[in-house]
Amino acid sequence: MTNEEKNQLLYSIRDHLKANRSRIAEANAKDLAAAEELLAQGELSQAVVKRLALQGDKIDQLFNYLDGVAKLDDPVGQRQFAMRLDTGMDLERVSCPLGVVAVIFESRPEVVVQVTALSLKSSNGVLLKGGREAAHTNRALWELIDEALAQKGLEGAVGLMESREDVGALLLQEDYVDLIIPRGGNEFVRYIQENTKIPVLGHAEGICHIYLDDAADLEMALSLVVDAKTDYPSACNALETLLVHRDLAPKVLPQLFSKLQAAGVELRVTEELQPYGQGLETAIDADWECEYTDLILSVKAVGDLDEAISHINRYGSGHTDSIVTSNPERANRFLDAVDSACVFHNSSTRFSDGFVFGLGAEVGISTNKTHARGPVGLEGLVIYKYKLRGSGQIKGDYSGPHAKPFLHQPL
Amino acid sequence: MTNEEKNQLLYSIRDHLKANRSRIAEANAKDLAAAEELLAQGELSQAVVKRLALQGDKIDQLFNYLDGVAKLDDPVGQRQFAMRLDTGMDLERVSCPLGVVAVIFESRPEVVVQVTALSLKSSNGVLLKGGREAAHTNRALWELIDEALAQKGLEGAVGLMESREDVGALLLQEDYVDLIIPRGGNEFVRYIQENTKIPVLGHAEGICHIYLDDAADLEMALSLVVDAKTDYPSACNALETLLVHRDLAPKVLPQLFSKLQAAGVELRVTEELQPYGQGLETAIDADWECEYTDLILSVKAVGDLDEAISHINRYGSGHTDSIVTSNPERANRFLDAVDSACVFHNSSTRFSDGFVFGLGAEVGISTNKTHARGPVGLEGLVIYKYKLRGSGQIKGDYSGPHAKPFLHQPL
Repeated sequence: MTNEEKNQLLYSIRDHLKANRSRIAEANAKDLAAAEELLAQGELSQAVVKRLALQGDKIDQLFNYLDGVAKLDDPVGQRQFAMRLDTGMDLERVSCPLGVVAVIFESRPEVVVQVTALSLKSSNGVLLKGGREAAHTNRALWELIDEALAQKGLEGAVGLMESREDVGALLLQEDYVDLIIPRGGNEFVRYIQENTKIPVLGHAEGICHIYLDDAADLEMALSLVVDAKTDYPSACNALETLLVHRDLAPKVLPQLFSKLQAAGVELRVTEELQPYGQGLETAIDADWECEYTDLILSVKAVGDLDEAISHINRYGSGHTDSIVTSNPERANRFLDAVDSACVFHNSSTRFSDGFVFGLGAEVGISTNKTHARGPVGLEGLVIYKYKLRGSGQIKGDYSGPHAKPFLHQPL
Repeated sequence: MTNEEKNQLLYSIRDHLKANRSRIAEANAKDLAAAEELLAQGELSQAVVKRLALQGDKIDQLFNYLDGVAKLDDPVGQRQFAMRLDTGMDLERVSCPLGVVAVIFESRPEVVVQVTALSLKSSNGVLLKGGREAAHTNRALWELIDEALAQKGLEGAVGLMESREDVGALLLQEDYVDLIIPRGGNEFVRYIQENTKIPVLGHAEGICHIYLDDAADLEMALSLVVDAKTDYPSACNALETLLVHRDLAPKVLPQLFSKLQAAGVELRVTEELQPYGQGLETAIDADWECEYTDLILSVKAVGDLDEAISHINRYGSGHTDSIVTSNPERANRFLDAVDSACVFHNSSTRFSDGFVFGLGAEVGISTNKTHARGPVGLEGLVIYKYKLRGSGQIKGDYSGPHAKPFLHQPL
């Protein structure tokens, strides 16, 4: 399909969802009613119920999302490289879809529409598995999508999985599924990573650090640490461990600890930092490799930049790490030597996000070191192929004592 | 290290190898003597002994190889993307090394030097494991490399593994090794793929096809098929299965079968193609998924282009497939619809190679659909990181009812 055809498909899905918004709202009402009961029984949290809701404005956002993805450049068919190997023999490297992608996600049902849009825009088939709590909403959205696809003869290009057994079966389909993107908690993602031969794109953990260098601006240090820890503590890009240069500790920690505690943050600090505050817990080794996803922060002093870098490379998860310093050489050294997907200078770790980065759309955040890393946009759903157009050339003519040379002329 | 420093390192390795070429030749002579004995006992093939030899001109090629890799562009530090998120907050995406790469290869000992050059040029550490038959040569090359590295304080950046137990231990080091590149036979590569959580780049099989469309030029068809099958039958890009349009079969097969048989090729063909030659074996289902790596070819007639594409996508290994036709629409459809790393028009499958493609250097050929695909140059040894340079911005200012907007201005 051309880009224009794919965009028309996204618009026809949008229109079909618009024409049937009551079906979406009704299905979601069923899920919400069931969730409220579980909430009352203490089996679900308020946060989960809130993420589940797909009513009113949030339904309109689905339409905007489809429009937004349609407006992106076609990730498929981009020429990445071209070279004339010889007269009448031209090589090009062109982006192409992966094939079939599977996305497994937790409660937010709008992911059904988001991932559908991204997968169709990148010419991939997709298998979706959403959270159990959103089962009615997910099914209603998927049915509407499949109805719109069927009008173009494409029914089945988006598949819905609804049971744990489906996921178990999926993990064994390495001959048919090209990429799995699990979005959810640590244990869930790790389970997927450890139980399939299919490439997995994502992150199990976001153990993000801020290092306050001794040349840090004090006001900036306070503001960045408070934001990174408290803006959205359950996000994967929230701060988990603060490293402070030993010489800076007495100047910044008393005020910083007070501010964090006033914001409800529990502090777990090493012995040497106990004098800088009150009501401080003692950090144990396990704290350095823990993603709290909560208002808890571990804090440790280091002797220099290299010790900070070593700590991060040893205990971090390669997600997002930031240095606060007014010394540009140290900033550059941190950005080069910290082996994480996102390395920041004088910025909150919370900026690590595909929409913030201007990627237009996000399929997930990857801590992998192959294929796609960091916030991943459409480029994570494509690969490339080499196309060679010749005119009957044979390899035998280009080897041996009378070998023809290759031109290797970039086009 | 800067590009210039890395190049100086490659030149100093070259000079140290040059100054000690007798050590290389003597170590290789030991391996060759042992191999000759095994050859006499029928336990090694002449081909393996030939690949093992590293004497005379072949030692000079090592120096050329180091020079050649030094001349390539630095794959690290390339800016791939840059965007101003807001005033005083600039994002860039920059290529960076993977970290530690392991390469496991069979008998050719020059791979020690080639892979060392590629790994150092891309700022990676590397672990090498070569074939047992070349143990003395591999060790001599590695010792010389490590001596040259030690002069710059970099001893250990290239590691040598010498036993099967080393490889077993390597496969469990997913926390320390970022990529494994196995180069060797099908079973060996599949064993690696199935026994590690480390990403594996490579190909287990090269089941390459040529499809002769009914609009194929007859002379070109004959020449391409003979070249693709006989030029180097044990190469992964050699032809294994020929598909012929049913209408073309009577016009091309009698002459083609004769030519192939004259070149020593055993033909395994479907029942319907038996009338077109003599001494033809009958193809069975297993032939369509077999990489012969020998002078054997399976042949089948198809009714149209779509049947050819379906056969290739079902039985192929996603390596290299070629169509012979004078119809450009059908050629384009084949190039788009065949889901292989390399898709060719009117060209021998034998051109699928990093040196031929002008990549300058090849770490392997990948049939993966993530990270790197097809012949892989230095780009397979790097990934990227996002660097964000701010001036104290916090996420809280960019959300909520009074959210600051992002600029998202490409730089």
